[in-house]
Amino acid sequence: MAGLIQKIEQYHGIRTLLEAELEAVSTIFRRQLASDLPAVNDLCRHVARYQGKMLRPTLTLLCGLAARADDAEWTTAVGDSHRVLAAVTEIIHMATLVHDDVLDESELRRNAATVNHLRGNETAVLLGDYLISNAFHLCSSLGRPDINRRIGATTNELCAGELLQIHHREDWSIDEATYFAIIERKTASLISLCCRLGAEEAGAAPEVAEALGAYGRLLGIAFQIQDDLLDLVGEERVVGKSLGRDLEKGKLTLPMIHFFSRVDATERLEMLEHLAQPNGTVQPLRISALLLASGAVRSARATASSLVEQARDQLSLVPPSAAQQLLDDLACAVITREF
Amino acid sequence: MAGLIQKIEQYHGIRTLLEAELEAVSTIFRRQLASDLPAVNDLCRHVARYQGKMLRPTLTLLCGLAARADDAEWTTAVGDSHRVLAAVTEIIHMATLVHDDVLDESELRRNAATVNHLRGNETAVLLGDYLISNAFHLCSSLGRPDINRRIGATTNELCAGELLQIHHREDWSIDEATYFAIIERKTASLISLCCRLGAEEAGAAPEVAEALGAYGRLLGIAFQIQDDLLDLVGEERVVGKSLGRDLEKGKLTLPMIHFFSRVDATERLEMLEHLAQPNGTVQPLRISALLLASGAVRSARATASSLVEQARDQLSLVPPSAAQQLLDDLACAVITREF
Repeated sequence: MAGLIQKIEQYHGIRTLLEAELEAVSTIFRRQLASDLPAVNDLCRHVARYQGKMLRPTLTLLCGLAARADDAEWTTAVGDSHRVLAAVTEIIHMATLVHDDVLDESELRRNAATVNHLRGNETAVLLGDYLISNAFHLCSSLGRPDINRRIGATTNELCAGELLQIHHREDWSIDEATYFAIIERKTASLISLCCRLGAEEAGAAPEVAEALGAYGRLLGIAFQIQDDLLDLVGEERVVGKSLGRDLEKGKLTLPMIHFFSRVDATERLEMLEHLAQPNGTVQPLRISALLLASGAVRSARATASSLVEQARDQLSLVPPSAAQQLLDDLACAVITREF
Repeated sequence: MAGLIQKIEQYHGIRTLLEAELEAVSTIFRRQLASDLPAVNDLCRHVARYQGKMLRPTLTLLCGLAARADDAEWTTAVGDSHRVLAAVTEIIHMATLVHDDVLDESELRRNAATVNHLRGNETAVLLGDYLISNAFHLCSSLGRPDINRRIGATTNELCAGELLQIHHREDWSIDEATYFAIIERKTASLISLCCRLGAEEAGAAPEVAEALGAYGRLLGIAFQIQDDLLDLVGEERVVGKSLGRDLEKGKLTLPMIHFFSRVDATERLEMLEHLAQPNGTVQPLRISALLLASGAVRSARATASSLVEQARDQLSLVPPSAAQQLLDDLACAVITREF
């Protein structure tokens, strides 16, 4: 019983610690983006409202906490470099959101107007650039060129993934391999780096850091599939952002790939006719119905589920701790989330 | 006579050296942007065609060469860090061109189609991001966090300047001080850093590095005024890019500020009516005629000229050399250029 109580208390303790650390990360985030120009500050305050799940900072911190074998050490496992890295990755993520909203012509993000909707595409493009620049500026405050280099290599991957995605826009014939190549770059690479750097900065053993990096990569892929699913079958009010944009923008998603791989010529033709409708007249509900009826939604969910199981498997290589348990919970939450 | 011949030969020597160094910079530029994705490589090859004046790399190299008092040393003054920094600043500059063309809806750049015109705004936004990311990635290969930090601080300024400019769009009442605040950030800050870092990396004395930084700042402001002038009274075929965009986009330029400060109410009203025309129907020729007649073009030219003289004055603090002479020539060329 003592063990169980201890575990619950530990669990409570780590949650409290995590919340305090995330608050510290938010402070670094705000301070970094502060400008002497009120016009810039207004925009940054708006962007700060998009912070929601804080997945990347949470993973950076939690992987730091999980890296130590000795539970007695976990309260000191996370340091300044974790907080700065967590803020850096969150700023990078915000930059991708702001630019994605321009590309997707989205109007809603976390139930607030997008920057492009509120202030126009020009301002949104420039604000995204300001965020990217600030992320690198903040990162270099660590005085660690190796980390700058790895963050830079990962954002190169991220942008290349986005470019590959747009290159294949409205190409409904691409296969799962191309789809995974895209989302590994655009989503999983940064999430994986958060986990790996979080572990390394806490002095993790190489095999633990590697396992947590692999955990992040698998989790990241599953996360993106869930995003794809929510765009198709989510509820706009709950998700808090414009939905159906992937279809409008000709982005290939996993449910759609599964659909085309399992239907006959008639159903294929019906879907292609729906997808060929001009922007603004695409009927997302009709498309969702076709996807659901074909079993493509279920099978995309199964793929995400299996990736989450693989991510959880990686945690067996990490010393047992409350942080490890939270990482396990987090993996499950990635595909059960409705926002 | 011997002295003069020696000088001419030295001048020839430094030009040959500079050309070889710029070739090396272009190689670093191309290698950095190379991707395993053909779709990304195609875009980067297109962007490489925008390289024209190579002002920032040239200044980085020349300020390195000018930093040494002893002429005998100049052939060894420029090293790997100069070449990498020169490529970094050129990639940053290319990113701003690609994003500026999106904002300005430009179709022509260096007499070639812009990325947005050729491949759409989405691709152009993402390609600009890819370039920014690669600039920081390349910069971190120097293993010098101080340089990363200064480059990051400068790109923060650059983006803030662009945001300030867009914030004041169509505000025809802003004064010279606001105009200079904008262009110092968006144009002069990076050019000044090129000069200063180029000098410092060659081991310049602090007062020489400072003078060259000031030279770059003044040159950068003059450069932007000349850009403003060319957009209004240049020849599209010679300039090689879409003109009249500043007016269409409601960007305040120095000739326009001078116009409003010197005309009477009738002329003011006439200009405002022209500027209030919807996009696509603005008559740049009519506006140019008004600006020319008012003397505003001449007075903006005089401001640029005076800045160039101030920039040249800074060179008196730099040891005399062929490189110093070239920097002097370059300052003059900034405002006599027609492209």
